Amino acid sequence: MGSTQAAIAKTSPNLVVTVADVKNMRAAIKEDGQFKRTFIASKASVDEQIKRAIIVPMPQDGGGGYTHERHKKNYKLMYDAGIIYQLTQDEKYANYVRDMLLIYADLYPTLPLHPKRKMGKQSPGKLFWQSLNEAMWLVYTSQAYDLVIPSLSTKEKTKIETGLFRPMANFLSVESPQTFNKVHNHGTWATAAVGMTGYVLGEQEWVEQALYDLDKSGKGGFLRQLDELFSPQGYYNEGPYYQRYALMPFVTFAKVIQANQPERKIFEYRDGILLKAIDTTIQLSYNKLFFPINDAIKSKGIDTIELVNGVAIAYGLTKDAGLLDIAKQQNEIILTGDGLKVAQALDRQLEQPYQFKSVAFGDGNDGKQGALVVMRQNVNGEQAVLFKPTGQGLGHGHFDKLTWQFYDKGAEIVSDYGAARFLNVEAKFGGRYLPENQTWAKQTIAHNTVVVDEKSHFNANVKMGNANHPELLFFDKNEQVTISSAKIDSAYEGVLLKRTMALIKLPLQNKPGQEQSLVIDVFNIESNKAHQYDLPVHYKGHLISTDFTLDTQLTSLSALGKENGYQHLWLKAQAQPKAGLSQITWLNDNGRFYTSSAVMDGDSSLIFTQIGANDPLFNLRNENAFIHRKAKAKNHTFVSVLEPHGEYNPSKEFTISAVSSIENLSHQKVNNIDVVEINFVGNQRYLLAFNSANNIEKEQSNSFSVNGINYKFEGRFKLFSIK
Amino acid sequence: MGSTQAAIAKTSPNLVVTVADVKNMRAAIKEDGQFKRTFIASKASVDEQIKRAIIVPMPQDGGGGYTHERHKKNYKLMYDAGIIYQLTQDEKYANYVRDMLLIYADLYPTLPLHPKRKMGKQSPGKLFWQSLNEAMWLVYTSQAYDLVIPSLSTKEKTKIETGLFRPMANFLSVESPQTFNKVHNHGTWATAAVGMTGYVLGEQEWVEQALYDLDKSGKGGFLRQLDELFSPQGYYNEGPYYQRYALMPFVTFAKVIQANQPERKIFEYRDGILLKAIDTTIQLSYNKLFFPINDAIKSKGIDTIELVNGVAIAYGLTKDAGLLDIAKQQNEIILTGDGLKVAQALDRQLEQPYQFKSVAFGDGNDGKQGALVVMRQNVNGEQAVLFKPTGQGLGHGHFDKLTWQFYDKGAEIVSDYGAARFLNVEAKFGGRYLPENQTWAKQTIAHNTVVVDEKSHFNANVKMGNANHPELLFFDKNEQVTISSAKIDSAYEGVLLKRTMALIKLPLQNKPGQEQSLVIDVFNIESNKAHQYDLPVHYKGHLISTDFTLDTQLTSLSALGKENGYQHLWLKAQAQPKAGLSQITWLNDNGRFYTSSAVMDGDSSLIFTQIGANDPLFNLRNENAFIHRKAKAKNHTFVSVLEPHGEYNPSKEFTISAVSSIENLSHQKVNNIDVVEINFVGNQRYLLAFNSANNIEKEQSNSFSVNGINYKFEGRFKLFSIK
Ligand SMILES: [Zn+2]
Ligand SMILES: [Zn+2]
Repeated sequence: MGSTQAAIAKTSPNLVVTVADVKNMRAAIKEDGQFKRTFIASKASVDEQIKRAIIVPMPQDGGGGYTHERHKKNYKLMYDAGIIYQLTQDEKYANYVRDMLLIYADLYPTLPLHPKRKMGKQSPGKLFWQSLNEAMWLVYTSQAYDLVIPSLSTKEKTKIETGLFRPMANFLSVESPQTFNKVHNHGTWATAAVGMTGYVLGEQEWVEQALYDLDKSGKGGFLRQLDELFSPQGYYNEGPYYQRYALMPFVTFAKVIQANQPERKIFEYRDGILLKAIDTTIQLSYNKLFFPINDAIKSKGIDTIELVNGVAIAYGLTKDAGLLDIAKQQNEIILTGDGLKVAQALDRQLEQPYQFKSVAFGDGNDGKQGALVVMRQNVNGEQAVLFKPTGQGLGHGHFDKLTWQFYDKGAEIVSDYGAARFLNVEAKFGGRYLPENQTWAKQTIAHNTVVVDEKSHFNANVKMGNANHPELLFFDKNEQVTISSAKIDSAYEGVLLKRTMALIKLPLQNKPGQEQSLVIDVFNIESNKAHQYDLPVHYKGHLISTDFTLDTQLTSLSALGKENGYQHLWLKAQAQPKAGLSQITWLNDNGRFYTSSAVMDGDSSLIFTQIGANDPLFNLRNENAFIHRKAKAKNHTFVSVLEPHGEYNPSKEFTISAVSSIENLSHQKVNNIDVVEINFVGNQRYLLAFNSANNIEKEQSNSFSVNGINYKFEGRFKLFSIK
Repeated sequence: MGSTQAAIAKTSPNLVVTVADVKNMRAAIKEDGQFKRTFIASKASVDEQIKRAIIVPMPQDGGGGYTHERHKKNYKLMYDAGIIYQLTQDEKYANYVRDMLLIYADLYPTLPLHPKRKMGKQSPGKLFWQSLNEAMWLVYTSQAYDLVIPSLSTKEKTKIETGLFRPMANFLSVESPQTFNKVHNHGTWATAAVGMTGYVLGEQEWVEQALYDLDKSGKGGFLRQLDELFSPQGYYNEGPYYQRYALMPFVTFAKVIQANQPERKIFEYRDGILLKAIDTTIQLSYNKLFFPINDAIKSKGIDTIELVNGVAIAYGLTKDAGLLDIAKQQNEIILTGDGLKVAQALDRQLEQPYQFKSVAFGDGNDGKQGALVVMRQNVNGEQAVLFKPTGQGLGHGHFDKLTWQFYDKGAEIVSDYGAARFLNVEAKFGGRYLPENQTWAKQTIAHNTVVVDEKSHFNANVKMGNANHPELLFFDKNEQVTISSAKIDSAYEGVLLKRTMALIKLPLQNKPGQEQSLVIDVFNIESNKAHQYDLPVHYKGHLISTDFTLDTQLTSLSALGKENGYQHLWLKAQAQPKAGLSQITWLNDNGRFYTSSAVMDGDSSLIFTQIGANDPLFNLRNENAFIHRKAKAKNHTFVSVLEPHGEYNPSKEFTISAVSSIENLSHQKVNNIDVVEINFVGNQRYLLAFNSANNIEKEQSNSFSVNGINYKFEGRFKLFSIK
């Protein structure tokens, strides 16, 4: 890299934590409160660790292995000790950091590429097998250095910068241009690391390169990543599990830029895209867990450290009391200036309920490559529908176009499997994604969307998936209805898939003041050729009843198919319900019943399955589903309604409303208008009418006739109550 | 029944709630606190209900049906309104109760036996299909009457007593002598109802009969029930689920006797058996749920109303601050004098941690018919072993002699299925015990104990089960070890089953200050003939690893057997581990790993199963087990150790100690002493030695030699640490 330009006169620390922050934090640890308690705990932990000898091992092991974990622990410890140094002004912490940095400064120039690097598969590091880990290390260690710099002699600084920081920054940028310039999460970490180090070392050139790419062309670099990796609403196309991970270098480097070059107004960049990204990450959760789409570990939630950081930083900028509600649920204070603001606000109980919303998050950097749709309402508990006409989401994406999930009363009711992985459990394929992640979790049949001829969308080809996306036709709402429609014709050649989903809140006429929640699903398929269409519902809970006879396998089970995920399903029971209404009721652990009512044409079957076949090492959870199957048709429409009802409380020994209130369900297409009619007991009838044409006029007039009665509505939809 | 004797001069109310209680409660509802808040909520509920017309329907429906539920709601409402009357002194509440009672007084004399009574199966009622429900009704309604009596005219009292209470008390006693005199829960309700009515109406004769049976012979009646239905430690032989249910009439009638005839000192009767029964009910729980042995709904917990009552009454008598800890967890205040004492104590935060103990609860009225053994310790969370060498437990008992369960860190790890039932869910066999309760849940293979030749204990014959019981050989403990041993030779003809279980706490030498929890299980079987021996472990969690090759069924599953529960198990995988150590590790939702290490003789197999075969209506939960199988042997000993370890935290992205620390396990019998040796990594070795002979001297001297080293210990056991 180029030699130093005129070093920017600066006072340290001035990365994420600034001199002003330190002043406030030093005062705060004298006062009772969450910040002080966190400081005490952190200091105790650091005190315990710095008693032990410094270990800086020769790099040997890959991810999860001893030397990998040791170098990780080292950067965390240096960072924490740096913070404690600034708060206590006790030199022993700075000395510890100095001593460790000096050892690294001796070691680093001698290091070759990591012995366990995956040739041709990952960008290699030196301390770590991947340069990604190296960049992460530098993000933290540059901060540790910045925190202790005031205690170092010039000689020490020179040694550390010459032996460690300069070579490492060079390695991660000039020597790894593909990663550094990449518009990708790995590029974000690399540019953040190098940019932050540039600020500490006074190398403004490095900062410029971090922001605009090595050539400062703007084709890569941090700002280009902000332009391209998020949609205009702040949605990251790999999905929430990866969004929260990607957030960390973004918000960290942005805080640093803000502290050093406030004139850049980085938090206003692209209409405040960073704050939107933080907020969108929160919005993509239910009951503290992220929606587990694509390769996601289901237990990952809003208390993840990346979002703790994100919320603290966002609160520091906006003082939005709703963010405090989230911070309180996260239950973790960080020792930074923003963490202090959050802690003090929580001490004063300033939090207000965070507002979760119904939103269609456009996908892709232009927001026009499909969308992730979230529908929310509260009827005796929070409901959420997640409807997924998104893009593929790169390598971690699943083949699940137009799938959906449903949540109610705190629980997942219609489920997404997430990823097949036991994170860091050596005995489970080294803690990596299991083979069954590919053979089951990514396949279409593992999701709640149509499978054609037992093949997955795009034939499970990632390239093809990435090259195509669904089109969001509309997303609209009023007080009673939130509704969305999308289509895709590239998942299967010659097959058009179009799905409309609506989350509805109806008054219950026989129970004044009470409401009924419903999810209406109309899945239309068109093709010139005949195909088999399967539509699963992966339900969570225990099957209670069906209004048709079940032909259950009693003494033996066979797998449902041979490939594309079908090989993992045991066929447990089947049925051929008569034309009319079919109803399946299950009971969730949340104590509520759920009935799926579907329109049956008398020529379709229902298949009940359980995961577990072709799973020699017991890698898959044995979850349940029922599958609507139309064995042979060109065009077909699946119509169903999901209805939460009742309560099962064996502890208090009562059960109420264990039976559906729906007596009839029908669907017709009239003048290009879909009309769904639902009849409830007590002669309460509703019609949901919607127009899912590709394009309509803004206040398009629609009219149709049902049972001799004429109806009219404007725009995309209307819910009629029929007396 | 005999005509009134000299009416006992009394002031009402004076059953559970007395005049003194009312005075205190009236003062309390003027003060802020839990009692006042409960009063406000109850009053609001009563206010809402008394607005509606009184409905006293002609009895028509059986349990769960409309008229049954209506009469139940009526007694609850009369009782609640009676309480609110006394607290507010607002006549409208008393008038409501009066009006309803007058309607019942008109109706009752006209009633025949209930139309839906089960001929020859249950003692019939008139309002209800069972006299049990009628007695429950009378327990509450006699209290409601007692609460409003001061507001009634003589004419009204005469009408109500003549039309309702006298005939009903007569029906439940003189006209139902078999039930009234029965030493059984049904007899307790009947005697409580009639005795309480006797006190209100001033009919001391009825009280005497309630206490001593219809002939006052003492062969039946309340006192005889206290003698026989509980063991000396207060254990009720049907198990905790039924114990808490049986408690209600006992503690209610006892409070009434205490209020009216304190000279009886009813709470001191049989060395305080009632207080012991209440305490034992609490002791038989883990993490707020009862141990689900026999026919039990697993979600039943300490917050059940019967125990709320029991704890309030016990606290009122003893002022034991540990009971307040339980009351706090129950989170329900009752509007009685004792409920007030609890509420006020909780308002003042007087609760102290309740002490759960390791105890062997002798079974049977003499406490000598086997025992239910609870072992407890805390190693990074509470552990509990439940070991079950109990009697059969009558009709609701399961065929599960010597079975065990294990709990750790709040969760069930080694499981008991409980009952197969969806309480009050009409679609599940009318909400009654399912057929699978008999074909699966009661069978021996559904439990964690030895099954011989795939038949259940006592050939699943209840009479035979009731006629035999295991023998508790010993129960002993010291600071590191809690150990118990029991045997039975009547479960299978010609087969002696003897099991010794120990819950152990070891220091971890490589982690100073940390401990390791272990459960050691030595199951010895002796017979003159060769048999097949199966020993299941019904584990809760996800299988992580085995240290032997699994032969897993990939594309088809078959049932494991044809009857006695085997028909419900899918055979998922099997293995024939070599002689030496076998290890199976699973991961529980509580985030902890569990390894079962077993001594293998090289001629035994392991079978991995899942419930689900022969279950046409999806009635059974599809839970998992592994089964150790010795296909053919006369004598055999199963030896295993269960070891909790590590932590899986994917949310915080770390996994630690996912692998067992046990390197070797062996067992030998030396001089009638069982010696189990466990070797941990780092060359830490322990020997558990125990003497399970039928009888030993109090400080019996034992000696044995292992690997050339001599060991000695006195009494039943010792844990040696070998350097
Ligand atoms: Zn998925
Ligand atoms: Zn059982």
